[in-house]
Amino acid sequence: MSRCVALSGGVGGAKLALGLSKAMLPEELLVIANTGDDFDHLGLRICPDIDTVSYTLGELANLELGWGRRDESWSFMETLGSLGGDTWFNLGDRDLALHVERTRRLQAGETLSAVTADVAKRFGITSAIVPMSDDDVRTIVDTAGGPLAFQHYFVREKCAPKVTGFRFAGASDARPSPAFREAFEAASPELVIICPSNPFISIDPILALPGVRGMLAGTVAPIVAISPIVGGKAIKGPTAKMMDELGLPATALGVAEHYAGLIDGFVLDKMDADEEDAVRALGPDVLVTNTVMKSLDDRVSLAREVVAFSRQLSAK
Amino acid sequence: MSRCVALSGGVGGAKLALGLSKAMLPEELLVIANTGDDFDHLGLRICPDIDTVSYTLGELANLELGWGRRDESWSFMETLGSLGGDTWFNLGDRDLALHVERTRRLQAGETLSAVTADVAKRFGITSAIVPMSDDDVRTIVDTAGGPLAFQHYFVREKCAPKVTGFRFAGASDARPSPAFREAFEAASPELVIICPSNPFISIDPILALPGVRGMLAGTVAPIVAISPIVGGKAIKGPTAKMMDELGLPATALGVAEHYAGLIDGFVLDKMDADEEDAVRALGPDVLVTNTVMKSLDDRVSLAREVVAFSRQLSAK
Repeated sequence: MSRCVALSGGVGGAKLALGLSKAMLPEELLVIANTGDDFDHLGLRICPDIDTVSYTLGELANLELGWGRRDESWSFMETLGSLGGDTWFNLGDRDLALHVERTRRLQAGETLSAVTADVAKRFGITSAIVPMSDDDVRTIVDTAGGPLAFQHYFVREKCAPKVTGFRFAGASDARPSPAFREAFEAASPELVIICPSNPFISIDPILALPGVRGMLAGTVAPIVAISPIVGGKAIKGPTAKMMDELGLPATALGVAEHYAGLIDGFVLDKMDADEEDAVRALGPDVLVTNTVMKSLDDRVSLAREVVAFSRQLSAK
Repeated sequence: MSRCVALSGGVGGAKLALGLSKAMLPEELLVIANTGDDFDHLGLRICPDIDTVSYTLGELANLELGWGRRDESWSFMETLGSLGGDTWFNLGDRDLALHVERTRRLQAGETLSAVTADVAKRFGITSAIVPMSDDDVRTIVDTAGGPLAFQHYFVREKCAPKVTGFRFAGASDARPSPAFREAFEAASPELVIICPSNPFISIDPILALPGVRGMLAGTVAPIVAISPIVGGKAIKGPTAKMMDELGLPATALGVAEHYAGLIDGFVLDKMDADEEDAVRALGPDVLVTNTVMKSLDDRVSLAREVVAFSRQLSAK
């Protein structure tokens, strides 16, 4: 049985997931990865968040770039450009192998869950990495200039368009993946972590799946979210910019408000200690600690603190 | 108008095609590439003969390997292997870009002719490279152990199974490509070259297309074939082994017999000069010269001799 279920997007979530996998027995961790960022490009199925989590937990991530694989080469994309192909979404030669193999297996009828589990096993990962759904869910970013497919907004347009909202196409007809459901159905997990990922584009697609809010409401496990906003800024990515554009305060408190009613605990950075009382007033208990994860030690120590905090919550 | 139409398979044919492109104005040359070797692998459309001709004429060929691109890297295939993917058909990272881009464009509805022409243009090639057909034709190798898809025979099984015959699936319903037909319909070419390619698996698929033998019979241009067999051996590939297994003499004369009735001229190597009279007795005029192309100079000088020989034939 998985003791800890972590909901995660890409980089920030994957960092904490790596910490969690070292703060407990790795096989006690089940990471639910957002698939709203997935898209088909160059004829390939690309799953950025699953891959970032897999590369990170497999300790294969490219730490300089912040995405993709380490020891990467770039011959493919360089040549594709010279052939007039699309180069706005960069793919390394090693990373590409995963996309080609996954696409082939999906086309042969395997589920995304099965392919993801097999890749994780080949990377030597003993934690479970589970797509939120085996059905296609695609995040659409509504902007002042019209709707954009997520990766068009995120990578091609570099998050420049002003965001007015989000939709998760296909979510209402998608089922949470079997391992996601089983993690809550067979027996309750001991803790549920909402990783410091973007609430709107990494966590909300997971919460948009039919039944997920019910599973979370029904679990006896404490649900703890870690703020991706520190000192009014996102550690990485467009979270703060999006909150501004949506007319929300780009603060840890703003994130806590987004999750109010869902969470039992909230973790914010010491830099935002002045928001502690306001977050408590929303309902959740609060842990104030260092949340910026620069080193592997940072990841493990934050994970340990989050686990200890969750235990206190469940003892109440 | 194309002055010279060359029918070609992979390496040997491409070498002479490169020579021909330098023995005349390059835009006077139209190379018809065999597509019977094409196959779908890892979800990609792979066209080995088109690509060998394109890389060779673009002077991008990997001369050490004898296939693929120069300045190649291999990260993709190495990683694919570590993911448990199929690695029996090796693909370099740069080569892969062509397969991905071609597959995407074909799936978007472009013809193989259009994609091939565009790639050639991007490689700076001013000769025309034309697939024999835009319709799928797939060479099946009948062997003692049963039928094998061509690349399974050729690459996966390394030509080990004993050949009993060949079939070209789809050929009877395939049309020669538009540029192939136009090269004979608008006006006759001045010469037609059958490159020193494997007669059974490189040239016969082209000849198997409905109307091609008629186009060749109807042209006033001399048709000249160059023997791929020299001194009882194939310069490259399984031609001699196949002839043995099919009960045919693995000689230049055996090749000439295969083309008897179709060709006006035959080029054989000085090493096989003793076969000249027997070839003449089959009908074609004969040029005996050095046909082994090691250097670029060898390619150009053989091409010049073949062109001069053809001119003599057409003057008759």
